[in-house]
Amino acid sequence: MLSTMQDVPLTVTRMLLHGAVVHGDAKVTTWTGDGEPLRRTFREVGARTIQLAHALRDELGVVGDQRVGTLMWNNSDHMEAYLAVPSMGAVLHTLNLRLPPEQLAYIINHAADRVIIVNGSLLPLLAPLLPHLGTVEHVVVAGPGDRSLLEGCRPTVHEYEELLAGRPDDAFDWPELDEREAAALCYTSGTTGDPKGVAYSHRSVYLHAMEVNAAASFGLTPADTCLPVVPMFHVNAWGLPFACFMAGTSMLMPDRFLQPAPLADMIEAEKPTVSGGVPTIWAGLLTELDARPRDMSSFRTVIVGGAACPPALMKNLEDRHGVTLVQAWGMTETSPLGSMAFPPLGMTGEEAWPWRIIQGRPPAGVELRLAAPGGGIQPWDGESTGEVEVRGPWITAAYYGGAAGEPFRPEDKFSEDGWLRTGDVGVIFPNGFLKLTDRSKDVIKSGGEWISSVELENQLMAHPGVAEAAVVAVPDEKWGERPLATVVMKDGVACDYPALKAFLGERVARWQLPERWTRMTTIPKTSVGKFDKKVLRRQYAAGELDVTVVP
Amino acid sequence: MLSTMQDVPLTVTRMLLHGAVVHGDAKVTTWTGDGEPLRRTFREVGARTIQLAHALRDELGVVGDQRVGTLMWNNSDHMEAYLAVPSMGAVLHTLNLRLPPEQLAYIINHAADRVIIVNGSLLPLLAPLLPHLGTVEHVVVAGPGDRSLLEGCRPTVHEYEELLAGRPDDAFDWPELDEREAAALCYTSGTTGDPKGVAYSHRSVYLHAMEVNAAASFGLTPADTCLPVVPMFHVNAWGLPFACFMAGTSMLMPDRFLQPAPLADMIEAEKPTVSGGVPTIWAGLLTELDARPRDMSSFRTVIVGGAACPPALMKNLEDRHGVTLVQAWGMTETSPLGSMAFPPLGMTGEEAWPWRIIQGRPPAGVELRLAAPGGGIQPWDGESTGEVEVRGPWITAAYYGGAAGEPFRPEDKFSEDGWLRTGDVGVIFPNGFLKLTDRSKDVIKSGGEWISSVELENQLMAHPGVAEAAVVAVPDEKWGERPLATVVMKDGVACDYPALKAFLGERVARWQLPERWTRMTTIPKTSVGKFDKKVLRRQYAAGELDVTVVP
Repeated sequence: MLSTMQDVPLTVTRMLLHGAVVHGDAKVTTWTGDGEPLRRTFREVGARTIQLAHALRDELGVVGDQRVGTLMWNNSDHMEAYLAVPSMGAVLHTLNLRLPPEQLAYIINHAADRVIIVNGSLLPLLAPLLPHLGTVEHVVVAGPGDRSLLEGCRPTVHEYEELLAGRPDDAFDWPELDEREAAALCYTSGTTGDPKGVAYSHRSVYLHAMEVNAAASFGLTPADTCLPVVPMFHVNAWGLPFACFMAGTSMLMPDRFLQPAPLADMIEAEKPTVSGGVPTIWAGLLTELDARPRDMSSFRTVIVGGAACPPALMKNLEDRHGVTLVQAWGMTETSPLGSMAFPPLGMTGEEAWPWRIIQGRPPAGVELRLAAPGGGIQPWDGESTGEVEVRGPWITAAYYGGAAGEPFRPEDKFSEDGWLRTGDVGVIFPNGFLKLTDRSKDVIKSGGEWISSVELENQLMAHPGVAEAAVVAVPDEKWGERPLATVVMKDGVACDYPALKAFLGERVARWQLPERWTRMTTIPKTSVGKFDKKVLRRQYAAGELDVTVVP
Repeated sequence: MLSTMQDVPLTVTRMLLHGAVVHGDAKVTTWTGDGEPLRRTFREVGARTIQLAHALRDELGVVGDQRVGTLMWNNSDHMEAYLAVPSMGAVLHTLNLRLPPEQLAYIINHAADRVIIVNGSLLPLLAPLLPHLGTVEHVVVAGPGDRSLLEGCRPTVHEYEELLAGRPDDAFDWPELDEREAAALCYTSGTTGDPKGVAYSHRSVYLHAMEVNAAASFGLTPADTCLPVVPMFHVNAWGLPFACFMAGTSMLMPDRFLQPAPLADMIEAEKPTVSGGVPTIWAGLLTELDARPRDMSSFRTVIVGGAACPPALMKNLEDRHGVTLVQAWGMTETSPLGSMAFPPLGMTGEEAWPWRIIQGRPPAGVELRLAAPGGGIQPWDGESTGEVEVRGPWITAAYYGGAAGEPFRPEDKFSEDGWLRTGDVGVIFPNGFLKLTDRSKDVIKSGGEWISSVELENQLMAHPGVAEAAVVAVPDEKWGERPLATVVMKDGVACDYPALKAFLGERVARWQLPERWTRMTTIPKTSVGKFDKKVLRRQYAAGELDVTVVP
């Protein structure tokens, strides 16, 4: 029986109109360093969004689902692109300015961006790439920066403000869109292979923003001011720009002032109530505040995600500066909200900590399951380990544009029945809390059971003589894989493998104990400072390591 | 360009599984009067929901989109029907036990209910109707009540607990549903004509529940306990049952104990944080608390809707008992959340009151517009009056089951472009706040302008000699319609029409002043105590009123 309800699509257009009309007095404030911040109301941003849509269509000829790239900081111009491009039916392609230049060129070409809107300060990054960008016809420059870098480039160059000036700002004939059409495109910066594109739909962006606004999530209201430190080129700044327009929440945009000192300054001056960012940002803020305290009392909730947050960072920020971090888990493929670690009902203080430093509960709309090592699904008992698989209306089902231009679904990324395989390994407790224990590529698959490399490393590093420890899987005839323990001893401490193994034996199950041990002066690391386990596995395979077998 | 996102439908099934699995420890507590409350966890409710689905399908043969009616109070058994019936693909038809018996029979027959689940205490209402209910094959009785009333009735009678007992409680093969299929059916109790059915979709119920959980709405979280005083047969108890399962919010169910004294008792004992109900409920609670105060401090937000709430009631509950009422506006056709009156940013105390006693802002997802008297759309200037029209994914587009079984769209209820015509007349301020001034059937359409009958009545009743005043539209050759003022003077006060008109002339625009006046000893009222303007208009047309023309 069909319902009698209206069939109104969930689109970015509706968020734009709601924010600009119902919450016209809310503000987008962009930090400018030493100068007066740039302040625009949602009403003004809405009017400029209409002008931008006219400019893109009437002047630059953007039609249909063409891609408009943005290489921009978090600022109010970027907000206008966020709203205008999807609302006119085109696709917003946010460009990660931290990608290596060749990957940046790759994703612009792969997405076939026709227009790039770029902040002037980022021209030194974009200009050298332009000769390699075949599809880009227009470059629109916003904000301060050296335009001479674009002299002689092939695409037509426009000034953002000139492009908008004088165009109608009261109406645009926004098309009626299918909510399953793409609104925004974001590429993963995977460590292996080419970046892969996730094409968010209007529907997924809308539903995700509703979830962000749930009281049990970020809980944005018109009484909040939200500081998205997470860049707008990282998974749509976790959906915060859309959520703010939906809730009528004022925004504080850091622009390029992401260093700890200006961040602390803008927080003290503009008093945001909610923020979100990666652990590195909050670690930098902690150091800054320790050196020069500022008033952080405006913060109600600060979300930390993108990587596991060190518990010491959470405790120190809370104890010393009154900033409460809430851990969240997700990835580009999950829009990103996958879980949040608010403590269970009734738990506070010390009792709550074990629940706050894990990944937390999935919100309604996100279904989790644990794929067991040998097939099948693990129970939620807090002990059975599996690869986390996810399903829901804001979870990706495929990647954008494979060989034949069709979406593609690599087997290692999607289950047969369509769930996203996250590559994260963990357990789920009976109360719905997810705790990650490893990455699936690093887990040791030994005789049908999984051994967490991270768990072994953490236990080894608790030994007073161990400076660093990395554990990787190596092939084993009998068990398939077994752990290899790589240790770096502290200066002046002798390495005694049997003693280390005995130490470990008191802390983990016997069958998990490594037989193979090796010692290094330092463990190879990736560009972001993580143990480079690929290198370790390769060195082992090439016989380059001095391995001792401890029975 | 199609997105790469998963196409996961928004269904009641997903809410059921989320609540029962991720928030299994949350509770549904049902008040039992003097006895110990009945407490069930979401996990237990989930297991019983699975048993109920098995019973309905395997024992009673419910298939496809057949209708299952519920004639029940707010209790945990009713919650199980709420979750089981839509999740198995059938349609939950909530029966309003306050309807006149002939209307109750009408809607059961119109919806062709095959099964009715009924609370034992409501058998005196249902039993006499059974001979007139052609489609009902099974009656399932839950809770205490006199079963002998059903002796000899045609439908098969079942005991709820016996029906569930022994059935599998761990799994049901829930069908994959189209989110646009009907989940629940609710009939309006319109004052004119037959009740009309609104068939909510899984999608509309899901999206509406997400909005209920937004921080700027009810804002439910696992830390809340929600007391739905609004009956589950009134617009799905404003979506609260679904929202609670989505957010992991414990519920306090009043069952049939809706009188002020037990309500105050259960609030003091069980400490709910959020509630919702009509003004009458809170007026009763105020009187009760004035007589015998109870601890109401657990309340964070109490929503009042269904009718305009007298400001004095709001102020007295807040000043005397610390209970803050928040006004909301909506109707059966709007699921019902249409707007909420949280005060604008930065306004508190006296300054906030003018905004708290009107209808408030629409949430994202609800679009409002004001249809002007002469056609066209009114601006949001706080002055231009129009009929409120609404659009959105949880707003109805038609009514269920017209003459040919198809949905039907009466012209007075829907605009040509598909917006719902609410029948409410009002203004919208530039900050997005809606203020209702009249019902469209009561507004006086005079020379292309609208005159609010309510405004004239309120001003007249401010005169020290006037006990009651009703204003209705009467035909006028020159202006189309003009206001007729009907007054009841206080005992011992003489009626002086010119003086009353002069009094009014100081308060409203000159062109709005009534020329026609009449005096009564009492104004005819409807069964719920409102002025019966239909009767007044009929009396005027029949020449039964003694009308004085005051030039």
